[in-house]
Amino acid sequence: MAEARITPRSQDYSQWYQDVIQHAGLAEAAEVVRGCMVIKPHGYAIWEKMQADLDRRFKATGHQNAYFPMLIPLSFLAKEAAHVQGFAMEVAVVTHSGLKAVDGKLVVKNELEEPYVVRPTSETIIGHFFAKWIDSYRDLPLLINQWANVMRWELRTRLFLRTGEFLWQEGHTAHASHEEAKEEVSRMLDVYRDFAQEIMALPVIQGVKTANERFAGAVETQCIEAMMQDGKALQAGTSHDLGQNFGKAFDVTFQNTAGVREHVWQTSWGVSTRLVGAVVMAHSDDDGLVLPPKLAPIHVVIVPIYKTDAEKAQTVEAAHRIAKELRDDGLAVKVDDRENVRPGEKYYEWERKGVPVRVELGPRDLQSQTVMIKRRIAPIEPNGKPKKETLPMKDLGVSLGKVLDEFQAFLFQRALEFRQKNTITVDSWKDFTDVFTDQGSKFVFAHWDGTTATELAIKEATKATIRCIPLAGQGPAAEPGKCIKTGAPSAQRVLFAKNY
Amino acid sequence: MAEARITPRSQDYSQWYQDVIQHAGLAEAAEVVRGCMVIKPHGYAIWEKMQADLDRRFKATGHQNAYFPMLIPLSFLAKEAAHVQGFAMEVAVVTHSGLKAVDGKLVVKNELEEPYVVRPTSETIIGHFFAKWIDSYRDLPLLINQWANVMRWELRTRLFLRTGEFLWQEGHTAHASHEEAKEEVSRMLDVYRDFAQEIMALPVIQGVKTANERFAGAVETQCIEAMMQDGKALQAGTSHDLGQNFGKAFDVTFQNTAGVREHVWQTSWGVSTRLVGAVVMAHSDDDGLVLPPKLAPIHVVIVPIYKTDAEKAQTVEAAHRIAKELRDDGLAVKVDDRENVRPGEKYYEWERKGVPVRVELGPRDLQSQTVMIKRRIAPIEPNGKPKKETLPMKDLGVSLGKVLDEFQAFLFQRALEFRQKNTITVDSWKDFTDVFTDQGSKFVFAHWDGTTATELAIKEATKATIRCIPLAGQGPAAEPGKCIKTGAPSAQRVLFAKNY
Repeated sequence: MAEARITPRSQDYSQWYQDVIQHAGLAEAAEVVRGCMVIKPHGYAIWEKMQADLDRRFKATGHQNAYFPMLIPLSFLAKEAAHVQGFAMEVAVVTHSGLKAVDGKLVVKNELEEPYVVRPTSETIIGHFFAKWIDSYRDLPLLINQWANVMRWELRTRLFLRTGEFLWQEGHTAHASHEEAKEEVSRMLDVYRDFAQEIMALPVIQGVKTANERFAGAVETQCIEAMMQDGKALQAGTSHDLGQNFGKAFDVTFQNTAGVREHVWQTSWGVSTRLVGAVVMAHSDDDGLVLPPKLAPIHVVIVPIYKTDAEKAQTVEAAHRIAKELRDDGLAVKVDDRENVRPGEKYYEWERKGVPVRVELGPRDLQSQTVMIKRRIAPIEPNGKPKKETLPMKDLGVSLGKVLDEFQAFLFQRALEFRQKNTITVDSWKDFTDVFTDQGSKFVFAHWDGTTATELAIKEATKATIRCIPLAGQGPAAEPGKCIKTGAPSAQRVLFAKNY
Repeated sequence: MAEARITPRSQDYSQWYQDVIQHAGLAEAAEVVRGCMVIKPHGYAIWEKMQADLDRRFKATGHQNAYFPMLIPLSFLAKEAAHVQGFAMEVAVVTHSGLKAVDGKLVVKNELEEPYVVRPTSETIIGHFFAKWIDSYRDLPLLINQWANVMRWELRTRLFLRTGEFLWQEGHTAHASHEEAKEEVSRMLDVYRDFAQEIMALPVIQGVKTANERFAGAVETQCIEAMMQDGKALQAGTSHDLGQNFGKAFDVTFQNTAGVREHVWQTSWGVSTRLVGAVVMAHSDDDGLVLPPKLAPIHVVIVPIYKTDAEKAQTVEAAHRIAKELRDDGLAVKVDDRENVRPGEKYYEWERKGVPVRVELGPRDLQSQTVMIKRRIAPIEPNGKPKKETLPMKDLGVSLGKVLDEFQAFLFQRALEFRQKNTITVDSWKDFTDVFTDQGSKFVFAHWDGTTATELAIKEATKATIRCIPLAGQGPAAEPGKCIKTGAPSAQRVLFAKNY
């Protein structure tokens, strides 16, 4: 099937992103279900890799998985004032059960006594059960995680990054003290940071959200923020200190060691299929998807090269034999032995799908007991062509393992350098507005007077928002200054950017 | 927390099942969400083990995971006549988005142009996308699986076995010929059989559903049926030949090798969290949960036994050291070193949670370099007490591995013998009704005249239903006879039982 080319980033960044996803077969819009998408096999395989790694990290930090109902009684949402404010506009509501035919048309049948909302997040329904499960300090901490689908009726959607329904995990924990809850918030933010940097090859900045950007119902929201290739920020994970807000709303109490009943201190934290979008947008290029090896469903594709039938038999057989050896070494390998497809077409297809390493295997390679490999992003030779490397067939699994590790490190380093190059410190309103032109965005550390009014005025004027108040070591050294917009005093610079 | 005892099976089988689940902490009814449940960590961990093993089997048979929207346009359901008939009464319907406050009360806001149903199963929405993805015979077979939650508004619910919302996997495949689709139906039924027998230690009978019990929209439904301890049947998995029904309803066509457009042939197949209920009900006893080791979240619990502080230090340290060694051998091990809980209480608790093997570790064991173990169901000694075995500490992982394998085989064999003892062949209506008394049920192979009218009359009279028409080798040798109810001719005996 002849397909159109991928739109270059420089021409239309947004279209480029959609094209990369389409050409790689990651997902497509489910035009018949408002704002929703279908996650196709290649995209879902990336999510599965994310899930496996995150789940291991959650269990290693003492959490257990559980599953709570997808439907939440409408009245539950109303119990926490800020929470309902934040989600009221976004919920899908189940009002009926059953269908009946009326005049040949199918219509709803039984109206429910109380409607249910499809969970936009599960603090309320989980709060209800925590109240039943927690009785004493001995029941704490309670450390639960849920893998689930959630639904938020969003106005503007974009594949993976913002969809009506999405898949995620949501951690929900209850503690005997605020201090312990805050430690949990930090611990899980660190888990997200390590996952983003080690697995997604995505450098992130850890910080605290402003009151205006905080999770609805939280006392404090911490986040990790990553830079995309257009200089915009993408929030890649959040960890919320819920204080006693939900504990009070759902009367979740425990008897402390002194025999006194107190409300528990809770946290929640989550990442979603949006991370698939983040990894696509951070690393891909005009040739299509680029994946860090640790998230690649296929690490290596082997393409046999032949002219004669004899060569074909020989190279295809060798390709499968080598593939088996590499699989024994723990690599995910695909042999592309399709007939009637030219090697060049195969290369092009696997490049668009983001396979990190291609192995070319011809008759001469079999003689020399070597293979030709090409990294998805190869160093450029002096002649302007991408470098192809030759590796001995002996211990190929080990040497390809090294190549993949190098490629993983290369992507992280490239993203880090890109972010460093596009991060600036700014002290005047003019310099600030010069950055945030029509399409422009960078990471800008600038002073802010701490008020929501100023935050909104800056957004109104530039579309830039405060992504976070960086934690210590995550931005320039904290020093007082004057707000770029109002000139009022500021304790430290905060991170501004346009965002997804 | 002092808990009531588990109701014995002989006293109230249904209450016993609920008690086992409650005492083991597997799940609880979500009384605020009609017919739904919360799957608690210990129950969810069993489901995760099931998922991991099934997922491996699906991938080994060439299937890829994907994810489709949870909401289905109401009009989609109506496109396949039998399908909508089967599910119309059971769907939850989303009619609105957003909430607003009216007179201080939260009510729905925006009515949708077209309501959505929450998926009760996904043939329709997947059919829609298959039509977009399939163009030529080269796109076939298309082999997709989805892990998802689904919702069916059921009148009578029971933890795990029948709940408003449940978790499951649904395979959906499209093929170029009916023959190939039928092969897929059989292949996946065999996968379910192997999983049930090898992992769940649950012997099953493979058969074909009658027209009356067929999946709504299928040409044929195959199933595996297992016997519970009360002689009732539990349908543990189904695999459907959908023929071209959905292909025609959603216009899923392909160009065949001769260049002619044809409708695809489809299959679907699924198992759900109901399997957790099946494993509980098949193996547990009046002391609580019994789990086959291959599904046990904890294989071995180690309880240190001590009197003095010196003994405590010694045994607790040794317990953790041994646990580490066993974990290195691939076992899931819990050390119960809680203070202020007597060993007897610990034993009782881990028995109720179904841990297959307990290791008791006292000072004398350390001296003799042995450990005392007790299987969850131990052979009974001549003195009437459950046998405790002594194992050398050297190579404990290997010998415990053998014990676990034996225990897995023992559970399967016990379930098989129970089923054999409670399976009979019956040729008269009197003998038939003698089996299906008030509480009674067995597996009864009997002749049936092949009509739905007779099937329903038998159900009306006895509550027994036709669980399946057994496949070759799955029941008595096929021989003609006369229907037990009407005396009309019958080609072969079918399997009757009351069912869950």
